[in-house]
Amino acid sequence: MSASNFYIGIFIFPGVTQLDFTGPFEVFSRIPNARVFLFAQTKEAVAAESGMKFIPDYDFSDCPNLDILLVPGGYGTTHLMENQRVLDFLKIKAENSKYITSVCTGSLVLASAGLLDGYKATTHWLSLDVLKLFPIQISGERFVRDRNRITGGGVTAGIDFALFLTAEFFGTDLAEEIQLMIEYNPAPPFTSGHPTTASSQLVEKIKGSREIAQNRRKAAAIRVLESKSKR
Amino acid sequence: MSASNFYIGIFIFPGVTQLDFTGPFEVFSRIPNARVFLFAQTKEAVAAESGMKFIPDYDFSDCPNLDILLVPGGYGTTHLMENQRVLDFLKIKAENSKYITSVCTGSLVLASAGLLDGYKATTHWLSLDVLKLFPIQISGERFVRDRNRITGGGVTAGIDFALFLTAEFFGTDLAEEIQLMIEYNPAPPFTSGHPTTASSQLVEKIKGSREIAQNRRKAAAIRVLESKSKR
Repeated sequence: MSASNFYIGIFIFPGVTQLDFTGPFEVFSRIPNARVFLFAQTKEAVAAESGMKFIPDYDFSDCPNLDILLVPGGYGTTHLMENQRVLDFLKIKAENSKYITSVCTGSLVLASAGLLDGYKATTHWLSLDVLKLFPIQISGERFVRDRNRITGGGVTAGIDFALFLTAEFFGTDLAEEIQLMIEYNPAPPFTSGHPTTASSQLVEKIKGSREIAQNRRKAAAIRVLESKSKR
Repeated sequence: MSASNFYIGIFIFPGVTQLDFTGPFEVFSRIPNARVFLFAQTKEAVAAESGMKFIPDYDFSDCPNLDILLVPGGYGTTHLMENQRVLDFLKIKAENSKYITSVCTGSLVLASAGLLDGYKATTHWLSLDVLKLFPIQISGERFVRDRNRITGGGVTAGIDFALFLTAEFFGTDLAEEIQLMIEYNPAPPFTSGHPTTASSQLVEKIKGSREIAQNRRKAAAIRVLESKSKR
């Protein structure tokens, strides 16, 4: 696939987890002639959940058609799951997108828009039980491709996801070149990066401390599904 | 070490590589009570080399004292190596910082300010031969600690570097918890992330295509060293 005029649009919102999209953005921005950009509801600066402030390139009024639509995650996704204006906009953009993708809990937003119905998908490990409330086949893989839906796991999974996408669309040579330029030769100092490799004590501690937020997400998912079944 | 009132300041500038600092920022922002922020020469938005636009929290007029000073890399570092205003400001900040750190070619800026003289340090693999022009002991490790200087390799090395720092200052438990929350269980789709694991053909291709930029960096380093020897 030629990279000329290849548009990759990343939707950002208050409370986004910035590394969910800054990782993929770094990879995609190194594809020759691809145009990677951020869009948001308005052109005002967007504060990520960590407080970092980004200026979007486009808003809902002027966002171009996309080849790849990417929705990152973060605590802000809980509100978005029931934000009809956002869900409607993403559905319209998705119609003209070649690939509809997410990293982390961005898949909960795609799911709420009905954009993952009947597909296999993944999300942050802590939210797999929320995603599985939707009519979606859940996978615990680091990233999942099902036809033109590609979803990544939590936060740093976005880097692996983006290198995979780059190879799929532009070839392995380019993906390998980008991997070498970003010196992606990871050496995590600990092995706690996944619930299957971390201590069960740590996994339970995190589940406990995030229980309220996760229950809020589950409740949002149930309301979304109930409101759909009434239509 | 208590995290209360722990200030981590990241210097950003036009042409910075955003993943050099967005990776560490994501890790550090999850340290309870630590305050992580971006500072720049002015409060205007700063465009990274990929075009992503950030709003700095502070500028040179109001940047607080730091516990950790972090200088990321990017093509913009070549100009900074001879920007006396920036070098002087970093030297002043460094005097009151507990730790002086860099990711990627940020170490070339620290080196130009004389802040790595006599220390062991590293940088992006492509710039190791520029860094070694300075009176610095070069290391090819993913991150290097020598007393209170901690330098990381290219781009994604910043994530490993930040988890290491978190463990050093706030304990392994917290670092492991952050690693699990950012699902840092990397699975690079290729093995080309380091010159020792990539094909020699790819390494030579990249060296060739970046020759002009690297020669510019070398020339800047030589001028910096000559101007110092004349003082």
